[in-house]
Amino acid sequence: MSSTSSKALTFELLKTDESSHARRGRITLPHGVVETPVFMPVGTQATVKSLTPADLTDDIGAQIILSNTYHLMLRPGVDNIETLGGLHKFMAWDHPILTDSGGFQVWSLGALRKIEEHGVCFQSHIDGSRWFLGPKESMEIQRKLGSDIVMAFDECTPYPATYEEAHSSMQLSMRWAAECREHLPVNSKQALFGIVQGGMYQDLRLESLKALSEIDFEGIAIGGLSVGEPKEEMLATLDALAPHLPAEKPRYVMGVGTPDDLIEGINRGIDMFDCVMPTRNARNGTIFTDFGKINIKNLKHQADSRPVMEDCDCYTCRNFSRAYLRHLYMAKEILSSRLNSLHNLHYYCDLMRRARTAIEEERWPQFRDQFLATYHGDAEI
Amino acid sequence: MSSTSSKALTFELLKTDESSHARRGRITLPHGVVETPVFMPVGTQATVKSLTPADLTDDIGAQIILSNTYHLMLRPGVDNIETLGGLHKFMAWDHPILTDSGGFQVWSLGALRKIEEHGVCFQSHIDGSRWFLGPKESMEIQRKLGSDIVMAFDECTPYPATYEEAHSSMQLSMRWAAECREHLPVNSKQALFGIVQGGMYQDLRLESLKALSEIDFEGIAIGGLSVGEPKEEMLATLDALAPHLPAEKPRYVMGVGTPDDLIEGINRGIDMFDCVMPTRNARNGTIFTDFGKINIKNLKHQADSRPVMEDCDCYTCRNFSRAYLRHLYMAKEILSSRLNSLHNLHYYCDLMRRARTAIEEERWPQFRDQFLATYHGDAEI
Repeated sequence: MSSTSSKALTFELLKTDESSHARRGRITLPHGVVETPVFMPVGTQATVKSLTPADLTDDIGAQIILSNTYHLMLRPGVDNIETLGGLHKFMAWDHPILTDSGGFQVWSLGALRKIEEHGVCFQSHIDGSRWFLGPKESMEIQRKLGSDIVMAFDECTPYPATYEEAHSSMQLSMRWAAECREHLPVNSKQALFGIVQGGMYQDLRLESLKALSEIDFEGIAIGGLSVGEPKEEMLATLDALAPHLPAEKPRYVMGVGTPDDLIEGINRGIDMFDCVMPTRNARNGTIFTDFGKINIKNLKHQADSRPVMEDCDCYTCRNFSRAYLRHLYMAKEILSSRLNSLHNLHYYCDLMRRARTAIEEERWPQFRDQFLATYHGDAEI
Repeated sequence: MSSTSSKALTFELLKTDESSHARRGRITLPHGVVETPVFMPVGTQATVKSLTPADLTDDIGAQIILSNTYHLMLRPGVDNIETLGGLHKFMAWDHPILTDSGGFQVWSLGALRKIEEHGVCFQSHIDGSRWFLGPKESMEIQRKLGSDIVMAFDECTPYPATYEEAHSSMQLSMRWAAECREHLPVNSKQALFGIVQGGMYQDLRLESLKALSEIDFEGIAIGGLSVGEPKEEMLATLDALAPHLPAEKPRYVMGVGTPDDLIEGINRGIDMFDCVMPTRNARNGTIFTDFGKINIKNLKHQADSRPVMEDCDCYTCRNFSRAYLRHLYMAKEILSSRLNSLHNLHYYCDLMRRARTAIEEERWPQFRDQFLATYHGDAEI
């Protein structure tokens, strides 16, 4: 099968489903091996909220986590982390880390930022201090953090956007992508992923993909999705890109999404996902299952001795009832966030494991169809 | 050596230090064995804040935890917990539990409560609803919770109090103690501890102890300490009681205290301690060590790669630097509370383990003196 290799990243394509773009792969990185498709828990501030590295490896089965240039440059400071031995040592995570470029976070600051040709002037959301972040700065920061996978610095195209807005935004991102590659050349110690932009315009998406192919990255990401567009538009974008994505490189769709989004993404050839949803929703009392979301605040769980999900083998489901989880939430106990996060991330990572097995065993279409038939996004069970 | 046994509790006195009242014992309860001296982490609302049962057993070495009648009767409700199989099952803690009577908590409500001959009328701190709690009700609630050790319902004598106030308050508590024993007779499935009151008046304390001896409890607690009195008064009270405490029963000083308080308590023959300090202070960024408290918020920890305590084998110290713990605190991350709580409770439980070994090895005086010489209550290190 196809494979690609650089100093920092080797990708092996192990199996492809014949009726879809779904694929089973393996990424080897300086800090370990990642079996794909994979979900990456988000550790924004050098911690996956409420969880330890031991939880992530032993209980959740996480293989790689994501952390954030923007948040870490402001606090505790990137030079500080570098002096302390880099991000892996700082947070005691000895497995692969992907860092995002900060592009999306500074873009999200709205009135607090100004986008220029060489980057973005912005004010810190913490104390209003003034900063500048562009492709050069982002590469330097991610180098200091020492992540396994570095993301190119890009501009997220807003939704909705006119064709002209999406076009010029995508072109800016492509100029920045080339600049990132200059500062972090092929065969560096860290892998660099380019990011496809172009809004909801499929010809712009393909033009962006072509521009990235000419630059040569170790992996391809798809950005600017899950920014408010209808789910159909997101899937149409992935449909348009799927036949053209390079088979020999890992593909990563950023910031997506719900469990059914992940299944739809895998079906369109995506290997890597990240999203704050399982952890953020956990803290708000929303718990994911194969049948949909449970709102643990609901009075009906008050005396329910069942676990959240009967056949789940996570620490939360092995030990605690819905009644106890509701009690912790109502009593505003810290353990509520933690037990809910444990289950949700275990659920996401386990769903990816089940998907990998289904592809390996040549029953992806059945697995996908059965999952989508029984999963109800906002249904209460 | 001395020992006592009832249906719910067996106490064996294994060793006594010859130059002090310090002793090494073993309590056997329906849910397991407790080696004493012991520190009991506080799980007010059916959770030791931020921690799982696995943390408490595997990482901290907790043997028994405490939970609260007052909080659980209001939320989630005691009948609810009973229906769900009792407190042990509800919170997935399969080791001994001691429940307090709610007496101290309703007394602490101040203007929201009115003390009468048969108990206390009070309003919930959560929603203002009206409740009544007396010896009879407290025994019934603790029976439904299914704890291993039940505490008698008492009135905490305020500090300061006149002799007459302390006297009549103590006498009320002794009438209530007798009533508790009626509702939970000797050789019940749960052990019942009486509580010595009497404020800072040593003759009242001895009178209270005598009254409790006549009733016959499985263990003796000392209440009404750590309520604002100078440390000297607390120790003087323990000094006055020490020669008179029954050798064959476990002795428990309630709500105490700092690491040096525990050492002073052991020296005065105390077997059991509980306090919210290690967990509450952890959430405020205060971390205990053999040399005193560390304020992790302090700027000087920003680039400090050392663990909180060099020779500590807790999960926090094995994996994380002071710099990382400071970052988590400053970034208001949930993991901050958890890692600090893990260390503090490990520190408290390990200090008790070291004390047990020192008594066993007949070097208690040296251990005590060395600890007290180097521990500085509020010193920054």
